[in-house]
Amino acid sequence: MRSHYCGQVDEALLDQQVTLCGWVNRRRDHGGVIFIDLRDREGLVQVVFDPDRADVFQTAERARNEYVLQVVGKVRQRPAGTENANLRSGQIEILGLELNVLNAAETPPFQLDEDNVNEETRLTYRYIDLRRPEMQKRMQTRAKVTGFLRRFLEDNGFLDIETPMLTKATPEGARDYLVPSRTHPGSFFALPQSPQLFKQLLMMSGMDRYYQFARCFRDEDLRADRQPEFTQLDIETSFMDDNAIMGLMEEMMRATFKETLGVELPNPLPRMPYSEAMHRFGSDKPDMRIPLEFIEVSDLMESVEFKVFSAPAKDPNSRVVAMRLPKGGDLSRKEIDDYTTFVGRYGAKGLAYIKVNDAAAGRDGLQSPILKFLPDETVTGIMERTGAQTGDLIFFGADKSRVVNDALGALRVKLGHDRGLVEGAWAALWVVDFPMFEWDDKDNRWVALHHPFTAPKGSPEELLANPREALSIAYDMVLNGTEVGGGSVRIHNMEMQKSVFKLLGISDEEAQEKFGFLLNALKYGCPPHGGLAFGLDRLIMLMTGSQSIRDVMAFPKTQTAACPLTDAPAEVNAKQLRELNIRVQLPQK
Amino acid sequence: MRSHYCGQVDEALLDQQVTLCGWVNRRRDHGGVIFIDLRDREGLVQVVFDPDRADVFQTAERARNEYVLQVVGKVRQRPAGTENANLRSGQIEILGLELNVLNAAETPPFQLDEDNVNEETRLTYRYIDLRRPEMQKRMQTRAKVTGFLRRFLEDNGFLDIETPMLTKATPEGARDYLVPSRTHPGSFFALPQSPQLFKQLLMMSGMDRYYQFARCFRDEDLRADRQPEFTQLDIETSFMDDNAIMGLMEEMMRATFKETLGVELPNPLPRMPYSEAMHRFGSDKPDMRIPLEFIEVSDLMESVEFKVFSAPAKDPNSRVVAMRLPKGGDLSRKEIDDYTTFVGRYGAKGLAYIKVNDAAAGRDGLQSPILKFLPDETVTGIMERTGAQTGDLIFFGADKSRVVNDALGALRVKLGHDRGLVEGAWAALWVVDFPMFEWDDKDNRWVALHHPFTAPKGSPEELLANPREALSIAYDMVLNGTEVGGGSVRIHNMEMQKSVFKLLGISDEEAQEKFGFLLNALKYGCPPHGGLAFGLDRLIMLMTGSQSIRDVMAFPKTQTAACPLTDAPAEVNAKQLRELNIRVQLPQK
Repeated sequence: MRSHYCGQVDEALLDQQVTLCGWVNRRRDHGGVIFIDLRDREGLVQVVFDPDRADVFQTAERARNEYVLQVVGKVRQRPAGTENANLRSGQIEILGLELNVLNAAETPPFQLDEDNVNEETRLTYRYIDLRRPEMQKRMQTRAKVTGFLRRFLEDNGFLDIETPMLTKATPEGARDYLVPSRTHPGSFFALPQSPQLFKQLLMMSGMDRYYQFARCFRDEDLRADRQPEFTQLDIETSFMDDNAIMGLMEEMMRATFKETLGVELPNPLPRMPYSEAMHRFGSDKPDMRIPLEFIEVSDLMESVEFKVFSAPAKDPNSRVVAMRLPKGGDLSRKEIDDYTTFVGRYGAKGLAYIKVNDAAAGRDGLQSPILKFLPDETVTGIMERTGAQTGDLIFFGADKSRVVNDALGALRVKLGHDRGLVEGAWAALWVVDFPMFEWDDKDNRWVALHHPFTAPKGSPEELLANPREALSIAYDMVLNGTEVGGGSVRIHNMEMQKSVFKLLGISDEEAQEKFGFLLNALKYGCPPHGGLAFGLDRLIMLMTGSQSIRDVMAFPKTQTAACPLTDAPAEVNAKQLRELNIRVQLPQK
Repeated sequence: MRSHYCGQVDEALLDQQVTLCGWVNRRRDHGGVIFIDLRDREGLVQVVFDPDRADVFQTAERARNEYVLQVVGKVRQRPAGTENANLRSGQIEILGLELNVLNAAETPPFQLDEDNVNEETRLTYRYIDLRRPEMQKRMQTRAKVTGFLRRFLEDNGFLDIETPMLTKATPEGARDYLVPSRTHPGSFFALPQSPQLFKQLLMMSGMDRYYQFARCFRDEDLRADRQPEFTQLDIETSFMDDNAIMGLMEEMMRATFKETLGVELPNPLPRMPYSEAMHRFGSDKPDMRIPLEFIEVSDLMESVEFKVFSAPAKDPNSRVVAMRLPKGGDLSRKEIDDYTTFVGRYGAKGLAYIKVNDAAAGRDGLQSPILKFLPDETVTGIMERTGAQTGDLIFFGADKSRVVNDALGALRVKLGHDRGLVEGAWAALWVVDFPMFEWDDKDNRWVALHHPFTAPKGSPEELLANPREALSIAYDMVLNGTEVGGGSVRIHNMEMQKSVFKLLGISDEEAQEKFGFLLNALKYGCPPHGGLAFGLDRLIMLMTGSQSIRDVMAFPKTQTAACPLTDAPAEVNAKQLRELNIRVQLPQK
């Protein structure tokens, strides 16, 4: 039906006849002539209709925005002065010789170039929203990146293997989506939160190198730009250690960024231990583009009389940190109040600060509500350690370590953006050496920081002797402060697996009931193996500079996990439920 | 951890040191020396351990089947006379210098080379079953074929776009798998039976060319080698007509067969109208490797006194056909009885036949229980039309056309295999010109043979005037008697869509309720579009010569839609159901 895409017609085709199909992006009548910008996936081209071809002209007059047209025309140079340097086709135009209306269109509910269209409307008419050039570009980038990743993995011997969607409920982790079984009354499948166990089983199956773009499901509350279904690039290998896995994976990401964005990521990617990341940035996914960091001052605060500082300074589960904001002295009272509210959302009870009006003037050069509580040697120590200069401002966090890390870590990122401090476009690194366990205060027990199949460093004896200090062979790839991927070497040895279950307080019976098939598989010749998973949606969101993962999915759900386009979810008829042996039981009002 | 795959070590590496990882396929002690066949994804290699390296030898003595080993050794020529021509590594062996037991293994529940392992056991220990070389090969072929298909499509401008899994129940079609929504009490998502509506919406979104390997779900009874979840290669394009779509798709299949199997499919693929396929083979997916076909003899039977023949011969909804089986005269009474039972399963009330003992002898040369009912001119006509020769046998089918087609069509395929008549390994063709509608006797109404968005040939007026004769622009790709793919050009015009709904007896309100979003989308600039879907599992099954689609899926379900490996589906706890606002209500015993 066509000879070229609209967006690909250029001077190379001058004087040739082309057949194009596309949508009317805009129609203008100008000087008795009709101009139609015809749009397809690849871009725009200008088509001109002269009144001397009467019937074609009359058809062109009928065309409205979003009409679908087929045009036969001749490529000619645009008149001097009317070129459009923003378009590949900007030097030429098409003289329309034949015109065929393939379909008419009612006036769309919004114009494609309209800003600030309500998101519910965009999703209801997603087929119009997706026609916007920026959405087309996002879908194209997504397809290009996934295609490139696949080729890289296949060239490296990874087999694309599909794992089941109708599977067993996850014993730990987020809430599952359930699927009632008709043939097994009262039983349910669960949609996978990830193919974790299956990919380990594939290694036990001798598949050696596996990958899959796997749809995953979590029935969580959709704060924080999450989606009920999302896609991960799931990878597992046998007979490779953590260094080999990280090496190959970062090579893949470097190649992908180079190929699709022309961006060079560092070789090798920096690696940072978890403890350092938490210590310096309060986060296990530090945004390294932001040149702000925590300075530990607990030791300086232990003996001050101000309990807000001295209490956490003396508590091993708390910390007191300073963070210098260069040239932050110009922050207004209002701005500081806003930041105080901001850190409050992360549990901080306040946000102490010192303004450095004159670094050379000692205490007199400083301005702060807390200054009066701090003895000279503490003030001197703070000034020395932070290296604060005249015009700077120093923020403080003092609380449980978790609160300080969350609050000041978030403030660090926010200040970086608010104050234009972000350096460079891309900062990627590995965070490694995660603790094996976290202590759960509530339940008074150890919980696995990753999952209970993550391999610890060292022997089972060392693990049992000192679980608090145990590190796992786990690694997260962090890009611009977002965890884009993460994984670990897995336990392949029964004794180690039993030791981990013991520390987690999982009895043999419980382990057998929950993970029996995996434990069985460990007995019959399990190879050393490990892997990781990349969050595709989030990666593409970063790569396309999008604000939400909804913008890189063709048909996302709203924040209440609904689809305004298809009206899913919906009520179903009673017969269907009867066949599934379930009944709806609405909450009582 | 290794320098090479086991299966890839050959003479090119003579005298070199290699490091290999793999599973003990077999261990033999022979003449004081230990031989271990080490196996990985790529194949086997023989490793020899001499007693003069005592500690390595002792470790090798401990090794049992399915132990996971790491071996460092030197590649050397096998002694003359001990070569194995079946292995790539068959000219060489490895002299083991170091040996590391990466993991021990208990005696597996079955040996990898054991035949006739019960399928339930194979699925329970799938991670062992998948280690069999033939299963490894199937998974590798599947990955290779999908990779090749992807590259072909991407090279042709198709974008890989993901569509939702949590979607709306299908108004028509098979039974849906449902997913209760927690955030919308009493409402349910459905898992997609296919991304049909979404791929059409993507065309309306201007994506132009789309593909996806899409997981699809149907909650049907699992007779006939079906699976609750299966994978289709889903494709849709804009601005291409049926010829262009079929041309590109057959080019893809030709390239895939050439690349992955070295098989040349014909160019172009033959096309056969649906009416011809039903007329000659009683099937819309004829296996063209079988040189048997139906001969219409209704006209010869109209006036015979034998009602079994004359009644269907006179009924426009019935037919009487003959099918000549060359050299079938040697069929025993028992064999004919068995075929009679066989066609009975398809509803045939009997299986008439004539044995041709001497084709030159007229009636006297024929042998048949029905001969006495047939006048001379009928017998002569049958002999002429079928071209029956001495030693042949002619089968007859006389019943409702559907019964004749089903029964004799199945018999045709069975005879082809039983009698060794199958010609060639591959026969691919397009079946085209399907009827738009079928008449549903039970509900006394037209139903769509494909789906209600399939475009008919001709105008809305022509369609309304003669729905019985209306043909759709649909096409099925048939390979060896299996439908491997099918699709159609879709309706892009509102008037045509309304005409189809009218014929199907779907009111405007009902159409709006069921397909409202698609109808809306038709209004806002819908391009001409069409596409198709290939059943990946079945295609790979054919390409690998497997007997069941379960053999080309890593983790299939059993016939009762259960997974013996993970024990899915399973009961879930009451809290989960409460959160979903549903209750189990078991059928009363």
